[in-house]
Amino acid sequence: MSKEKLSIVKIGGNIIEDETSLNAFLELFSNLEGKKILVHGGGKRATHMASKLGIESKMINGRRITDADTLEVITMVYGGLVNKNVVTKLQALNTDAIGLTGADVNSIKSDKRPVKEIDFGFVGDVKEVAHNSIDKLIQTDFTPVFCAITHDGNGQLLNTNADTIASQVAVGMSNLYDTSIYYCFELNGVLRDINDKDSVVRHIDSKVYKELLEQGIIADGMLPKLENCFDALKNGVNNINMGNTSMLTQANDNFTTITL
Amino acid sequence: MSKEKLSIVKIGGNIIEDETSLNAFLELFSNLEGKKILVHGGGKRATHMASKLGIESKMINGRRITDADTLEVITMVYGGLVNKNVVTKLQALNTDAIGLTGADVNSIKSDKRPVKEIDFGFVGDVKEVAHNSIDKLIQTDFTPVFCAITHDGNGQLLNTNADTIASQVAVGMSNLYDTSIYYCFELNGVLRDINDKDSVVRHIDSKVYKELLEQGIIADGMLPKLENCFDALKNGVNNINMGNTSMLTQANDNFTTITL
Repeated sequence: MSKEKLSIVKIGGNIIEDETSLNAFLELFSNLEGKKILVHGGGKRATHMASKLGIESKMINGRRITDADTLEVITMVYGGLVNKNVVTKLQALNTDAIGLTGADVNSIKSDKRPVKEIDFGFVGDVKEVAHNSIDKLIQTDFTPVFCAITHDGNGQLLNTNADTIASQVAVGMSNLYDTSIYYCFELNGVLRDINDKDSVVRHIDSKVYKELLEQGIIADGMLPKLENCFDALKNGVNNINMGNTSMLTQANDNFTTITL
Repeated sequence: MSKEKLSIVKIGGNIIEDETSLNAFLELFSNLEGKKILVHGGGKRATHMASKLGIESKMINGRRITDADTLEVITMVYGGLVNKNVVTKLQALNTDAIGLTGADVNSIKSDKRPVKEIDFGFVGDVKEVAHNSIDKLIQTDFTPVFCAITHDGNGQLLNTNADTIASQVAVGMSNLYDTSIYYCFELNGVLRDINDKDSVVRHIDSKVYKELLEQGIIADGMLPKLENCFDALKNGVNNINMGNTSMLTQANDNFTTITL
């Protein structure tokens, strides 16, 4: 039996930072047909607010070290400032949005990351997605808007990477839906030549992925991203798309689609 | 036909400020039987955060003048910091909480207060409570936790008094439920003698209210509070209770109940 389609769209800091980009994106998202979920980060805004409050932002390998003060800033910026502004803007576009952290309806439980060489502080690795609770919201025609915060189920909020939230929510929802992830970023997709923005690899499957790896085309930051994509695909996600926000329209087919 | 009961509980800044009080209250709230909604303020925390960010808090008659910077702080503190911490704490107590502003599920629309002698800035007066949308959450056994933010439906968040949110949500939900409001505050109830904390007037109805007014027992800050209560009662709310948080238990009956 074929399942209903569900799109999980993730936007990053660059879109959130710029009011015009954000408004343009939210209009595209509102017009996207079918059931959908939005996931947003907000790291740049959090770094800015932390600095205003005299809190130093420490990053290791692009991950934020989250001490108690930083967690407060993240809870304020992701859960409050960014999330609620996105929700009210979506309402104005007739999308019946509901803003969520992983604590709301107990939707995403995580484990505080164990301390090894690095103590990441209040950072959570996703353990459990309550797909039935999230689905109750979707079935009521509400559109969930997740920020990058989860919780441990014992009263502790935890900072969690937004890409991971998107992929883990998609995996969880694959129990009920035919899920597609859309990672919106600055590039037009995975590029064959990093200096040529139009050299988009339109379709990557396991075979193409192996070839690209052998050719050294996928490296650095893109490598873990794609590995996470294949993990999500192996765990039930139907397809994953990477490109700029216009991939949400029919007009643009110049982006990367990844399947198993 | 008798309707199902719904309790709307409002807590103020003093409980939120103090971790021990907040935890004790949330345990009482979790144990409260039946359908329920929590409404919280957070003004003291917002004032503190505004001051850290070098934003001056201007109050007139106990109402906050909300310029754009102050609205940002309020959105961060009420919608993020306070709301999400309350939600995760309630989840740890097995209450399936969902944090909301009036923008979420378009639950509370308001009008920006017109400028007369005073320009309150981004302050909203409640216009419409979407009782059916809120009820969809309640019927799914989620417990709504409202912070003191509404929106205008056109993408603008607005700061709104938490007492007013409690009474307007209760009025709206009276279409579907037999509603009781619990205003938790520092006093044990409405006091006959402000210097005697045990001189609680246990029951106020329209007749008693008139007598108390004539005797000059109700004045100052309590006067508008009680007028708002009678407004809510006239608009369908069943009863309103004022006292400290222990009125949520069976053990304490020394608080004020107000009926028409």
